[in-house]
This record gives sequence, structure tokens and C-alpha cells, in this order.
Amino acid sequence: MSSVNFESKIHSMTAKNLTRTLILDIPKYVSDKVKIEGWVATRRDHGKLVFIDLADRSGVVQVVGDEKLSSLRPQFAVEIIGVVKKRPASMINKKIATGEVEVTVENFNILAKSKELPFDMGGEDLNLELPTLFDYRSLTLRYPKVKNIFKIQSYLMDGFRKAAQDLDCTEVFVPTISASSTEGGAEVFKLDYYGHEAFMIQSPQLYKQILVGVFERVFAISHAYRAEPSVTTRHLSESIQMDCEFGFVDFEQLLDYLEEVGKKTLKHVEEVGGDILYSFGVPKLKLPTRVPRLRLGEAQKIIKELTGVDHTKESDLDPQDEREISKWALKEYNSDLVTITHFPTKKRAFYTMPDPDDPEYSLSYDLLFRGMEILSGSQRINDYKALLAALKQNKLDPKNFEIYLQSFAYGMPPEGGFSFGLERMTMQLLRLANIREASLFPRDMERVDVRLTKIKKSKTAKK
Amino acid sequence: MSSVNFESKIHSMTAKNLTRTLILDIPKYVSDKVKIEGWVATRRDHGKLVFIDLADRSGVVQVVGDEKLSSLRPQFAVEIIGVVKKRPASMINKKIATGEVEVTVENFNILAKSKELPFDMGGEDLNLELPTLFDYRSLTLRYPKVKNIFKIQSYLMDGFRKAAQDLDCTEVFVPTISASSTEGGAEVFKLDYYGHEAFMIQSPQLYKQILVGVFERVFAISHAYRAEPSVTTRHLSESIQMDCEFGFVDFEQLLDYLEEVGKKTLKHVEEVGGDILYSFGVPKLKLPTRVPRLRLGEAQKIIKELTGVDHTKESDLDPQDEREISKWALKEYNSDLVTITHFPTKKRAFYTMPDPDDPEYSLSYDLLFRGMEILSGSQRINDYKALLAALKQNKLDPKNFEIYLQSFAYGMPPEGGFSFGLERMTMQLLRLANIREASLFPRDMERVDVRLTKIKKSKTAKK
Repeated sequence: MSSVNFESKIHSMTAKNLTRTLILDIPKYVSDKVKIEGWVATRRDHGKLVFIDLADRSGVVQVVGDEKLSSLRPQFAVEIIGVVKKRPASMINKKIATGEVEVTVENFNILAKSKELPFDMGGEDLNLELPTLFDYRSLTLRYPKVKNIFKIQSYLMDGFRKAAQDLDCTEVFVPTISASSTEGGAEVFKLDYYGHEAFMIQSPQLYKQILVGVFERVFAISHAYRAEPSVTTRHLSESIQMDCEFGFVDFEQLLDYLEEVGKKTLKHVEEVGGDILYSFGVPKLKLPTRVPRLRLGEAQKIIKELTGVDHTKESDLDPQDEREISKWALKEYNSDLVTITHFPTKKRAFYTMPDPDDPEYSLSYDLLFRGMEILSGSQRINDYKALLAALKQNKLDPKNFEIYLQSFAYGMPPEGGFSFGLERMTMQLLRLANIREASLFPRDMERVDVRLTKIKKSKTAKK
Repeated sequence: MSSVNFESKIHSMTAKNLTRTLILDIPKYVSDKVKIEGWVATRRDHGKLVFIDLADRSGVVQVVGDEKLSSLRPQFAVEIIGVVKKRPASMINKKIATGEVEVTVENFNILAKSKELPFDMGGEDLNLELPTLFDYRSLTLRYPKVKNIFKIQSYLMDGFRKAAQDLDCTEVFVPTISASSTEGGAEVFKLDYYGHEAFMIQSPQLYKQILVGVFERVFAISHAYRAEPSVTTRHLSESIQMDCEFGFVDFEQLLDYLEEVGKKTLKHVEEVGGDILYSFGVPKLKLPTRVPRLRLGEAQKIIKELTGVDHTKESDLDPQDEREISKWALKEYNSDLVTITHFPTKKRAFYTMPDPDDPEYSLSYDLLFRGMEILSGSQRINDYKALLAALKQNKLDPKNFEIYLQSFAYGMPPEGGFSFGLERMTMQLLRLANIREASLFPRDMERVDVRLTKIKKSKTAKK
């Protein structure tokens, strides 16, 4: 092994003459000198030999040097110049893409030091309690398995966008500040807007419907805010929704579209991120040509037959029901997806179209994936007068829906759409125990990055 | 012409047996019967003949029928069954893609009626005052030229995403609710967050920097909130930013990247939306291989030489300066873009890296496009202690930056990035007079869809 040179000026000069090689490309350069940059993942000292796992955005590689490498500690950002060498057959590491080579250090340069880590990040699992995971979020996100959650999330988003664009949807950007709390139900966050009362939107729903009148087919990536004062493993105070909305469509077409978008989105993730998926212990996806479709009542009957539990009088599926009917879909249709339709009209949002053949039930649907709802939507009421009546029946004030109603007053065709929850889908796909793990910086009633106990009380807080 | 049949059941039955043809595809079906769906754009009555321009998401076509078509009014959503006929050569309309054909109506079906329009939407221009444009936003967005603004906007976004992905950036989703007002300067919107004081982010800046520690290269589409109590043609209270951030980079690389992303984004728009661009009277884009780069001081000298106006003591370019230096770039380099670097350190955000050769000036940059800044960014301070010192020097409390500082405490390599304003870029590309025209539902200190005078006063409003 060559000697390690600590004269920093020389490092820099040498470094400047070499362009950076991404770690994933290193196996192409056996016997060559390369410059690599990245973070120290782990360091193992074996007497005079020191081994470093160095990680950059493309991968991880083993670096070998003498004891001077011992000055490097986990999370140091470093630049290393060294020679790529083939490993002896017995030393090949099949777990990583660069496992057939290693880099023998000639020079290195510390770009940024790191404090000592508060916990071990070199193991197979991080094994932290949730509060610690989020108290140290800027650090814990770097842990490969945590980081990979968000690689999958980015693939989900890409897959969704491609699927929506294939259906000719135009991307629209909807605001998050709204003049009224429009959907009722869940509590909303209030905002002081130039001395006036405004609200954070609970969903992009009303805007995307308006925009059907403009573009006919739209998709929106949007934030959604829910101020429910409850702590569950399934709810976030701020989340990302992926929405589609279509004009000139009927219920059957909507079902086709939602299943197509769901399947394409998931398929894309498996295509580009299959390795990560399987590393989470997730089985291969089963996305059949025809997704089974059941009315809520039919699903409840099947669940009753299979389990003896009678939920046929319930207005929705509970989490256990969702798991049972998904098991059934997998067994009977070899499908990870199942579409449930016709929820009771009363239980869905005011804009949901009642089934003309049985108005107690609505032209609504949920898509379940492996035991959890990941999508919800419906055919909408598109007739202006019917919509007004529905608002009133839901005790909502039409005055708060001025711009929304306007779009229906000026000719709104039959329309409908659906919405995926990005974190929900990430959670379910990777089998995470808590939806917070599927949000880079989760917001809930206990935390906004830091714990709320550290944050000033609001002057307006009176409950 | 065939007789128009008003028996609605028959219409529906007929309609059900025909699948919809998109208007843009109609010229392929000369002599065939087609079903088309869309909105009535205009109606012209010529005695017994009535002409309708029908628009769907794909285009517009002329429809001809007898006087029964007179029941249709602008913005009615309709389904029409008719036969595609070639127009005589003298009647060809070269302005539209379907101008060689028309559809002779056999049946039609009103899907949704429209109220009478409050203004004419059939002319070459809408010619409305801004308040009217936004009081009727759900309607005015349907006007072709207004709608096209947002087609261009969607292409800008697509172009940006592709360019960022080509540079290996991972898409990240950052929160909009924050525990502290972090960047200082512009006023912020306050939120009651479960009884605690929280804020709407002014930019995704701090989060994207944190995420360089995770993914090395990221991009984020994010909302940005500015509560400045000012009404200008360039500012919105809520806007969309397109951000990139890169680790292990130096200043020259950052300049290369920002220019590459800027050029690719614009190029994509011209490729897919050139027709719309030119319909706005916009000249072809001039995007040279090498974008001219000037230090602020150099730009000021050039402006002084060209105009006699001495702004060499100023810390930024004013709007007139931006126009002058862009004119210069076009003349001297045949470039619509010019990059300005080295703004005074004091005038940029605390995280901006001072130039080591002359710390009064910073490793910062703006990108100007045809006379207006569309992008801003810098190399950042990546050393933990230097960052702490910069916070203190800017009179910011490190306690409010806990999670941000954490990422620098654990090894942050040299990094930097930039941010495009989506509405700003849309406005400048299409030469709109006011940035509000480049936002689907603009928020400012006078309006949240409806005028603020219509909205309840906030209980917390005390100034």
C-alpha cells in the first residue's frame, strides 16, 4: 500500500487534477487512480490496516488504508484518491454492487468533520424509538434503510405522474391557503392572513374540480392539512396527496382510470426500485389485468362468510376488514389490489354523486392495496342545483364556496376523480409500522421538527 | 343536413354505442359518424344554419346544425353525434388544427347548462381588468389564452424536473409548516398549531440543504409563503418554487448546473409548447452553449458604459439594470440568459458562502432571462462553526435552527444550489404584465379567491 500523505495542499492539488468518479462506476476502473467523494459509513481498524465503507449518492465501496485513516469517523465527508484493486475471490462482498473491488488510499482530504454519533449507524437496523428517530432526523435520514424509504417515495411520485400524464392530465398547482374551511369534518389549521381569518386546505379537491372546467383532465401534487387532535399510526397533520380529476367520464371509466393509475404507479416503483422493495422483505407485486371490484355490501358479505364477523351493517370497512378482503383478493384473484365501491352517500363528502339506481349509496370508491386503503374518490355531483342542494343538506354555507360553485354554474360536465396519499402508500408498500416513518419531516400534534413543548404557546390558543 | 333529434333517450342510446373521439383526431374520420364532447366556445346563427365552435382538451372544431342548435349557449357542456365532412377549400380555417373539416350534427345532448356569461369570451382577447379576471377565476381560466398560460406552466415544471433528474437529483417533499421563522427578512404567516406558534415556510431552503446530507443531490417543488404587506406586479403571497441542491460541488460546477437546468427547462417548453409561446408574440428562444457570466461589478460597469447611469455602488441590479444587461447579453452573446455573480455578502441570506478571495462579496448568483431574474442561489457555508457564526452575525437565534444545524454538525460537504420561481418564470416567458396572471388562484393581500373584504377579520389581528 502506498503511504498516506497528510500534506493538505498536495491533496488538494492532486484532487483538482482528477475528476470525481461515482462510487457505482468504480468497478470499471480496476488498476486506475480515482478520486471519490462521500461520507464515511463505517470504519473498522485491523491493526495497521484500516477499512472504511465510503458512501455517495450512487453506492458504497470499501476503502483500505493505513492507521492514518483512523482520523476519519462516521459521517465525515471526505475526498479520497486511491487505486482501484480487484479483491481476491474469497473477499468478494456480494451484498454491494462494488463488492468485487476496493480502493487503496493514496491521499485523502477531510471536507467536513462530524460530531460523534449519538447512536450506532453501522448495523443492519437502526433500532431507535420514534422520538429519537425524529429528534435526530437530519442524521437518521442518512441511515441507508431510512433513506431508501424516500427513494421509493420519489419513485412512487414519478410513477404516478407518468400514469396521470399517460391519461392526458395537465399538471396544475393549487394553493394551500383558502378563504374557508370547505370540506367540514376534520379540524383545520387557521392562519392570520393580513388580519383576516384563512385556513390551510384539507385537500386540493375543490380546486381540482374547478380545473376540470378548464383542462378537462388534471393532476395535482398537493399538500393537505389536518388539525385533528389525535395521535394514530395512520395520520399526519401535513401530508402529500396525488390527485387526478377527469371530465366527460362515467363511473366505469373512473374505475378503469384509478386502477390503471394505481397499477402503473406501483409497477414503476418495482421496475426502478425493486431491489429496495425486496430488501424490505416485500414480496413481488401482484397487479392483475383486472382488479377485482366489489360493492361495499358484497365485500362485507364475503368477510362475514370467511370470518364469521358480521359488519354488513357498517358504513365502511375497518382496518381488520380491509386486511380480510385484501387476503380474499390475493387468494381468489392473485391481486394485491381490490376496489371497493358504493359507500353510503351520507358517509362521503357532499360532492359525491349518489347512485341514481339507489341514492342511499354513492358512486364512490376506495382502492385497497395489501390490506390498506391507499386511494379514495368518486363520481361527483356536476349539476349546479344538485350541488347547491347537497351543500345545504350537509349544513355547509354556499357563501363559503363561491368560486367553486361558479365553475358549476358555467357548465361542468360529468366528472370525477381520486386521490392517493403519498405517505400512506409509501408506508403500506414498505410495511412501515407508522406513517411518520414515511414522511421526511413528519408533522403531528407533538412535533414540528422539534417537540412542541419547546415551542412558544400561541397567543390565540383558547380551547 | 340530417334532422336534429331531441328525444333525449334516443340520444343517450346512440351516444352509448359510439366511443368518444377527441376533437384533434376528427380529421382522420372524414365521412364517419363520431361522438364528440366538449364545451361550446362560440355560437353563430346564420338563419337556418347554426355554427358552434366546440372545444375539448385536445382542440376546437366547427360544428354545423339547424336552428335547434340555438338552444346551446357558450360554456354549455355537450355531447354531439355527427358526421365529419371536408370543408370546401375556400372555407378552410388555417388557424385551427381541425380547420379542414367540420362536423354536421345528427344528435346532441346537453350534459350541463351554463349561466349567461358576464362578459364576452368569444373574442381574440379577454380584455378584463384584473379584479374581474379574478372575481370570475373559475370561468376566466377557461379562456384559451388564459388557459394556455398554465399549459406553458406545466411544461416549465416538466422541463425542470427532467433537467434536475438528468443531474441525478432525488425528488424530496418538504413540509410547509415550520417551528420558526427561519430566514428573517420578509414577513411570515403565523399559524395556530395545536396551541403553539408555527409559521409557513418562506422557502424550502433549509430542508433542501439538510437533505444534501442524505441524498447528496435533491430537487424540490415547494410552496413558499411571503406575508409582505405590499402590492407589486412581481410578488405573490403564496408561490411555487423549483429548487435544486447539490453536495460535493464547487462554485464553477454550480454555475454550470444552474445554466444547464435553466436552458433545458426553457428548451423543453419551446419543444412541446412552441406554438403557444409564439401565439403570445414571444420570439424564438436564444439559449447559447455558453451563457455569459458577469460579476455584479462587471455588469454595473457595462450598464454605466451603455447608459451613463452609474449604479456601480448599488448592492443589486434594479429592474431597469436587469433589462439593460439582458439587452447587452442578447446583443453581444446572442443569449436570452445572463448569469450575474458575486453579490455583496451582507445582502444575501446568512447561509451564503463569502468569496474566500474577497469576503465582502459572496459566491452567489442570479440568472436573468430576457430582463428579469428568474433564479437565485449560491454556494453555501457548509462548515458548522462558520454557519453558527453567520447566524449570530445576522442576529438569528441558533435555537431556532436546531434540526438544520444538526445536519451540519454531522458532516456536510461543500454544497450549494438554486431556486426558480415558477410564476415568475411563466410571467417572464409569456411577457405577462402581472405575476398574478401566472398563478391559477393568486393569493395577495387583497384576495384569497374572494376579496378579503368579504372574509371575517382574524381575532388575532393586532398591528
